[in-house]
Formats: sequence, C-alpha cells, structure tokens
Amino acid sequence: MDNRPIGVFDSGLGGLTAVKRIINLLPHEDVVYFGDTGRVPYGNRSRETIIRYTKEDIEFLLKYDIKLIIAACGTASSVALDDLKPLFSVPILGVLEAACSTAATTTRNGRIGVIGTSGTINSGKYRELILTLLPTAQVFEKACPLFVSLAENGHFNTDVVRIVAEEYLSPLKEAGVDTLILGCTHYPLLAEAIGSVMGGGVNLIDTGDEAAKFAKRLLDERCMLSDSDKTGTCSFFVSDSIENFSVLGSTFLGRPIELAVHKVSQ
Amino acid sequence: MDNRPIGVFDSGLGGLTAVKRIINLLPHEDVVYFGDTGRVPYGNRSRETIIRYTKEDIEFLLKYDIKLIIAACGTASSVALDDLKPLFSVPILGVLEAACSTAATTTRNGRIGVIGTSGTINSGKYRELILTLLPTAQVFEKACPLFVSLAENGHFNTDVVRIVAEEYLSPLKEAGVDTLILGCTHYPLLAEAIGSVMGGGVNLIDTGDEAAKFAKRLLDERCMLSDSDKTGTCSFFVSDSIENFSVLGSTFLGRPIELAVHKVSQ
Repeated sequence: MDNRPIGVFDSGLGGLTAVKRIINLLPHEDVVYFGDTGRVPYGNRSRETIIRYTKEDIEFLLKYDIKLIIAACGTASSVALDDLKPLFSVPILGVLEAACSTAATTTRNGRIGVIGTSGTINSGKYRELILTLLPTAQVFEKACPLFVSLAENGHFNTDVVRIVAEEYLSPLKEAGVDTLILGCTHYPLLAEAIGSVMGGGVNLIDTGDEAAKFAKRLLDERCMLSDSDKTGTCSFFVSDSIENFSVLGSTFLGRPIELAVHKVSQ
Repeated sequence: MDNRPIGVFDSGLGGLTAVKRIINLLPHEDVVYFGDTGRVPYGNRSRETIIRYTKEDIEFLLKYDIKLIIAACGTASSVALDDLKPLFSVPILGVLEAACSTAATTTRNGRIGVIGTSGTINSGKYRELILTLLPTAQVFEKACPLFVSLAENGHFNTDVVRIVAEEYLSPLKEAGVDTLILGCTHYPLLAEAIGSVMGGGVNLIDTGDEAAKFAKRLLDERCMLSDSDKTGTCSFFVSDSIENFSVLGSTFLGRPIELAVHKVSQ
C-alpha cells in the first residue's frame, strides 16, 4: 500500500488523455500532472533537447513525493526514457511497452502501423519493441508532424484534419495494417478522423489507455495501490499560460478543470 | 560609420525571410542571427512567457557587440518590445512600425487587413499603430495559428495550406481589404497560397522586407552603416538541432546555409 501520488507529464496537453484513463481505472489515486506548455511541441526537436526537457519534467514531478511516473508523451517515451530511467530510483513508465504488447497480441495479420511525431518515428523504438515481442510482424511507420499542432489548436475532426490524415495515413492503409498504434497522446483527439481514413476493420490502439492499464497492473503487483476510499485529487501544473490550459485542457481531459492549475517557471 | 554586426532574432526560422532582405539591401553588413528553435513557436504562448523568451533572445545577441537588433518575429515585436526596449541601450527594431507605415500610406480604400499569430492579434498592436498613422482606416484582424506550424513543417503551397488559408482569410476578403499585412515573418513563405485566396488586387505587405528597408534608413540617418567594401558575414545560432536548421533554413533564407550554424543552450 502506497498513498503517494502518481506523477504524469507530457510536452503539453496531450497527456491529459492518459490522465482521463488513469482517473477512470484508478479513481482513488492522487495524480500530479505537469504539462510543459511553455515548450510544446517536443516532436520536431532534436534528441538532445528532448532528453534535456524530459529530464527537467521528471525532476519537477519528483518534488511532489511521487510513487510512479508516467511519461504520457510518445516523443519523451521513445526518445528520452532509455537514457533517463537509470538516473532515477522511482519507477518511470513510458507509453510504448503496453501499446506494443497489446498490438503484438491482438494483430491478426501481423501488419502493424505506428504513427507519431518525427522524433518518435525517427527513434525507431516502436518498431524495435514490436519486433522483439513479435518477430514475424511487419511494421509500417509514419511521422505525422502536423497532428500535434492541429490538436493543440482545437482541430479535431475538421476538413483540414481529414485531408492531412488522408495524406499521412494512405501508405499505412495501402499496406493493409489491421492495427494502428496512435503513438502520441494527442492523437486520440483525432481518432474519429484517423479511424474514418483507416476504415472500420483497423484497431486503433490508444497509448494513454494502455499505459493506464499497465500502471494499474504494475502498482497492484508491487502492492503500491492506494488504500484510500476517497476519490483521488488531481493537481495540474504547466510551464505557460493557465488560461489556455483551463479551456483546452477540459476538452483533452473530458471534464472541467477547476482551480488546481498552478503555473511553474521551467 | 559603425562596422559592428546587426543582430536579428526570431522564435525559429521565420526571421530568415527578413535576413534574406537585409543581405540584399545591406550587403556589406555583418549579421548575427539567433533562432530560438528549441522553444518555437511563440505565437500561442502567454504574454509573460513571450516577454521572458524575447528578453533572453536579446541578451544572447548582445554578447556579439551588436549595433542594432531587429526582432524579426511578429509575436515578439507586438507582445514584448514595448516592455523590453527601455531595458536596453542598443536600438531595437520590431517589424510593426515599417509595415504599418507602408500600409497606411499605400492603401487606396483605407481597409487594411492584418494576419498574425494569436499572440500578435490579441496584443492589438498592429491595429493601434495603423489607427495612429491613419485614423480613418478600418482594420480587420485575423489570427492564423496554424500557419507557423505549416511553414516550419515545409508546407508552403499545398492543398492543406490552401484550405487553411481559405478558412482564415475569407472574412478579410469579404471585408474588401486592399492591403494585407503578413504580420509574421513565416508568412511570406505562404504568400502564394495567401495571394491566391485574397486575389490579385490585394497588396501583401511583407514585414521582414519593410523592416529591412527601415533598418537601412535608420542606420543611414544615424551614420551607422558599415564602410566595409567586402560582402558581410552571416553567423547563425539556434537553441536546438543544427541539422534541421541547415536543411529548412536554406529554404527560408533562399540560399544554402553553410558552416556558420552554432548551437546554443538557452
């Protein structure tokens, strides 16, 4: 039993889609969220910069006596965590492991698509992990660099999103993938547009959702679940404007965000 | 006569469109450029964050014994410069003054459009300055938050850009503006798409171009032009990946960028 909070971070607001799943699955856990909204997006930046920013995000969360950190950011998870995990004693969970495991066990034809930011796709980590779990798989990857900007600007299922999605996803559709990993926590917000391009037969895997399930299992196995019978609290910290966070964050989280937003300077 | 370099900064690569004009107009001047590519874009961030980032950009350039600083960034110019100019002794030139002056003197029907980032448009600075120069003007403003992401991802005149441009610019077209200020140094890269939506009768004002002319006049008036007869040097500094800068920067600058790119940590 461990009643300390779970820490969750993302480059911006995308990680709130993972928080939504965590709250549903683990309603008695306290959650501390940090969104690096002052430096979003991470996906087009260099490896060195992504590692530096991710390290600072983790260090910020550790101020709050965290029992588990979830990197609810596809870019940070794939580009930075291998280098950073050894530096910290707290368990740090990325979004790759659970999503790749689900993809590898549920694909019927072994053809798995992965979409993410340029940083995520260039890292090759999704491909590497899927092939470790299912060596016969064929992995088709595609960077979708505009998706984060579209989601952060409130474009979820507009004409523009549909055209961009058509352009990015056509090669994956043509490759006949039956499973598509949404390798960025912003992408569930575009799921309708992505799904309509890919067609009904393709299973979309939400990395935030899978990470939440994985976190629950991990905490359970290690006897680290909270034994509180109260609804957990959520505290939100951002490195830029609180106003923007409150408005758009509510859409991402799927419920109103109230007073617990605090601004930090990174 | 003053042979010290001109400093130019932008949130990212957009300011290189201004550098291109400066090099053409002032071929004997040395230029030091700083692109804050590790924190681009500025346009959606809060006023406080934009002021902090802009101050750091100016302080970085001042290490190079600069005679004049050009804020080749619509967002920094409109949101931060009023607060920051009094803090520095070196002259600092934004992109608003020259563009507004040209718009006010060349409009035929007094209907002037302004497009920029959300930060720029929310600041109301373009409107304020145009109305000071031409009190009878009617100013129509529109934030175009996706344009910077599109340009930074190499979308200049694609279907996506044309659809986004159509959506953003229709109200300005309907308002009958005869002059449109491209209030962000990224936008000249989208000029073809913007021009085709607005129609041939609308005069597009390139803020980087106008700022370069203004800088030449200012240096001339103050007897601060270089008296060198050699072609000036250009040094480029960025806060993120050099590789991305070299490739995309060449497109923005309109000529190959060679070895003088240096990475800085902000």
